[in-house]
Amino acid sequence: MKILITNDDGVFAPGIVTLASCLHERGFCTYVVAPDRERSSVGHAITLTRPLRLWKITGGRYPENLPVYACDGTPSDCVVLGLESEECSGADIVVSGINKGPNLGDDLTYSGTVSAAVEGYFLGKPAIAVSLNCGSDEESQHYDSAAEAVVAILGKLEIQKFGEKPLLNVNVPDLPKHEIRGTRVTKKGFRYYKEKVTRLLDPKGNEYYWVSGKPEDRLDEGSDVKAVSEGYISVTPIHMDLTDYEAIEVLRREGFEDLKI
Amino acid sequence: MKILITNDDGVFAPGIVTLASCLHERGFCTYVVAPDRERSSVGHAITLTRPLRLWKITGGRYPENLPVYACDGTPSDCVVLGLESEECSGADIVVSGINKGPNLGDDLTYSGTVSAAVEGYFLGKPAIAVSLNCGSDEESQHYDSAAEAVVAILGKLEIQKFGEKPLLNVNVPDLPKHEIRGTRVTKKGFRYYKEKVTRLLDPKGNEYYWVSGKPEDRLDEGSDVKAVSEGYISVTPIHMDLTDYEAIEVLRREGFEDLKI
Repeated sequence: MKILITNDDGVFAPGIVTLASCLHERGFCTYVVAPDRERSSVGHAITLTRPLRLWKITGGRYPENLPVYACDGTPSDCVVLGLESEECSGADIVVSGINKGPNLGDDLTYSGTVSAAVEGYFLGKPAIAVSLNCGSDEESQHYDSAAEAVVAILGKLEIQKFGEKPLLNVNVPDLPKHEIRGTRVTKKGFRYYKEKVTRLLDPKGNEYYWVSGKPEDRLDEGSDVKAVSEGYISVTPIHMDLTDYEAIEVLRREGFEDLKI
Repeated sequence: MKILITNDDGVFAPGIVTLASCLHERGFCTYVVAPDRERSSVGHAITLTRPLRLWKITGGRYPENLPVYACDGTPSDCVVLGLESEECSGADIVVSGINKGPNLGDDLTYSGTVSAAVEGYFLGKPAIAVSLNCGSDEESQHYDSAAEAVVAILGKLEIQKFGEKPLLNVNVPDLPKHEIRGTRVTKKGFRYYKEKVTRLLDPKGNEYYWVSGKPEDRLDEGSDVKAVSEGYISVTPIHMDLTDYEAIEVLRREGFEDLKI
């Protein structure tokens, strides 16, 4: 099994280095194609209006003999080039991460990390996005716990029979391995961002805006948000059929098929 | 009913000008907040690492008295600022488009136009994405047909009771009004992109890559792809619960909740 690893925090971020090093040490055949800089919150963006470059990276904190490429595109671009370019191809599975910070609830569609996994899935591969539920203090980030979670999941997936190829969103509590309580298979939960816009004035008195917002989690039973908050690894299987089948019936009943212009 | 209009082709694109002008003429209370340049295929990207500006646009091809703002962010940024900034807020519904080119099948997650509608939905508003199934020849683009489709849908939505707020992906054939055969309520179909990567050499002999690919459509019965190909307006209700509930059962059966690291 050959594994393409990517992320959205950039090719030199500690999360992807830990993940790639761990999988390489455990004997998995892996290669890395990741953005040359941080590309968080770019969603499923893909670059169609300018060409892209790939650079082979040598040295750094990656193990020797592990092929590593940086790309000046988005995480999804990295997956396209990582699966379909001449320089690097042949992966059987895509693993995206380890993201610095969780991807829970409706974070999914904003996340470059999750969207890279979706791109792998669209290109016919099983895919796993993995995120660490950490803050910004690098000293206390347990990327090794998240890497071990990926090893364990890959072990299970080998003996696994899915109807369709699996697409998994994994979130890992930021705890040492022995403090993690176990694993929960979860549904996507809800996290809201309140007060998304901050208005400030520049030195000339002109307005500008920051988009941000503090997350507020809804701790629904069985959700990704709740599992991680309780110290469990959360594994959420996701699908990309965005059709709202119930609403199809509503629209038909309400006469939308008689709509004339 | 107050309508926020946005798009991903940029604030001066013919599609958004036609849409805003049509709704304004029909007496809808509207305002525009749209990207200052083309931002196609940026997906649900949102700008968290730099501040954003809004500029009030006067003149151009927009009707007088219609408030129009350009923003140097993504389509989703425009929706956040268009709903939650001091300068422009108060919309009851978000309409995103008219996109130059269709958004069918798995285009949805790449599309800035559809993602802007999703952002409106996440911020608590009903939302409609509307796209014209056109090529690049401006002379033959029937944006007026797509604008009339939005007027008709807004008329129906007023008398509509949904379980949740509606989120609709509308695709309109590039035909004069009288040649459009009617409306179909559809499911998301499938379009594949073959041969996504083109490798070229620059004048120095270094490789670079274009990501592109020609779409190949699967004409499934009841799908958006098929309806538009047959000359119907396609209305696909979409939802954002990405949980694959069937796969939850598979994962539990296969012992993923016993996973230890």
